[in-house]
Amino acid sequence: MNLSASEVAEFSISVRVYIEDTDAGGIIFYANYLKYMERARTELMRCLGFNKEFILNSNLMFVVQNVSLRYLEAGYLDQELRITARIKDCGAAYVLLEHTVMREQSILVCGDIKIVSVNKKTMKPTRMPESVYAAIQAAI
Amino acid sequence: MNLSASEVAEFSISVRVYIEDTDAGGIIFYANYLKYMERARTELMRCLGFNKEFILNSNLMFVVQNVSLRYLEAGYLDQELRITARIKDCGAAYVLLEHTVMREQSILVCGDIKIVSVNKKTMKPTRMPESVYAAIQAAI
Amino acid sequence: MNLSASEVAEFSISVRVYIEDTDAGGIIFYANYLKYMERARTELMRCLGFNKEFILNSNLMFVVQNVSLRYLEAGYLDQELRITARIKDCGAAYVLLEHTVMREQSILVCGDIKIVSVNKKTMKPTRMPESVYAAIQAAI
Amino acid sequence: MNLSASEVAEFSISVRVYIEDTDAGGIIFYANYLKYMERARTELMRCLGFNKEFILNSNLMFVVQNVSLRYLEAGYLDQELRITARIKDCGAAYVLLEHTVMREQSILVCGDIKIVSVNKKTMKPTRMPESVYAAIQAAI
Repeated sequence: MNLSASEVAEFSISVRVYIEDTDAGGIIFYANYLKYMERARTELMRCLGFNKEFILNSNLMFVVQNVSLRYLEAGYLDQELRITARIKDCGAAYVLLEHTVMREQSILVCGDIKIVSVNKKTMKPTRMPESVYAAIQAAI
Repeated sequence: MNLSASEVAEFSISVRVYIEDTDAGGIIFYANYLKYMERARTELMRCLGFNKEFILNSNLMFVVQNVSLRYLEAGYLDQELRITARIKDCGAAYVLLEHTVMREQSILVCGDIKIVSVNKKTMKPTRMPESVYAAIQAAI
Repeated sequence: MNLSASEVAEFSISVRVYIEDTDAGGIIFYANYLKYMERARTELMRCLGFNKEFILNSNLMFVVQNVSLRYLEAGYLDQELRITARIKDCGAAYVLLEHTVMREQSILVCGDIKIVSVNKKTMKPTRMPESVYAAIQAAI
Repeated sequence: MNLSASEVAEFSISVRVYIEDTDAGGIIFYANYLKYMERARTELMRCLGFNKEFILNSNLMFVVQNVSLRYLEAGYLDQELRITARIKDCGAAYVLLEHTVMREQSILVCGDIKIVSVNKKTMKPTRMPESVYAAIQAAI
């Protein structure tokens, strides 16, 4: 089940902020936004062919190479947030994604994350399968 | 480098409470005590033969089978805690440990954790190596 | 919006296992089941009157007093799990819950968690509001 | 107990990689490097006047405004890492830090993190205390 280009363009998931996500400052702990973004990215990638069978059987996995985030507003316990994931660019062995964490119309955190497909054993960058690459290109 | 029985009896590590450990209640998040205990357990087991080479080369790993904890007092940001790990019992394929989380003379959390050695592929309980078993028995 | 007794009896939430939940053993990290259970407990308590306004305005909060868990089977990346929360008992200042983590018909983890309502400043056990107590009693 | 400029220039802490830090890819989960950096930053800031009393009594706290990281090599279970924290710049209400995560002579992760002092209630940027500002300036 692949997404259409327009569905990919607006891909997002909803998350509830639980106590596990917060810190003693009373706000969401800054590292935990990366968990939210990974969840959104995972769901997007699943739609593009990186499903369970791929994860288990493939010789490659995606690792993060770059993270660049701006924190604009704090998030709080019990809020419902929307996490978007949009593919900005894609090469033979990388995908560049843009993420935002939204609370209604406010952006709490936004930024880019670049992931690279690597061989699970050597950890060296490795071309992703043609089918996945094609699905991602079609989605940009 | 093995520990003597008396060193094992009082085995502990020191941890500082960082913002990552706390939640919006202003206290240490209850699941994070399990991280502290795992750190103490890991350091104790390392002394008993479960070192890096063991972890990487062995066909088995330890998984947790039972957790039973009492939370007596809350822990707070920036405090220094002492986490103890004491072996109460050991069988061919399990180790029963007692942990406490101390702040000076106060017990914050205490309880028992039982870990089982399992085959990494089948996840079935598997005898631990004789050398490790002997080291643990000597330490009880 | 309160739940009927039968809805409470079968209360559960669905969680997807993300990479954040796993560890280098290839399985769900044992402390993370406590996060899943907290999420289920939070959603159940929300239905019983501990909603956002309560959390923000009340002088009390719930803290965990006892955890007793059995780990029967490992959970893995990408699986969909069901987390149940059932109230077994309730006093003026505590709630005893039973949780299970299910993968289809298999129980991965099960156990009891006792939470206590405490004054946010003194951290001493404090009667929960009558309305919440009544809602919980009605749900047992 | 303040650090001399040269001590600040080379400020670092040592961390052991525990199972809690890893994921099913067999490597350190990418968000967890932010925890390591926060620990190093906290220890550095403590030396510069942001100690326990400050944290508890002050009307302000530091929140993260920007994160920019490059992941160069993966980190693995049981390794000992060194986390550096160096102040690159400081204004009336912000501190810009450079962090690296080192394994012996290899850089695993590096990047900049900008933190802002905000009023705890309004969450608006607020000048940090003169004594703290002076200590940081002296340390650059």
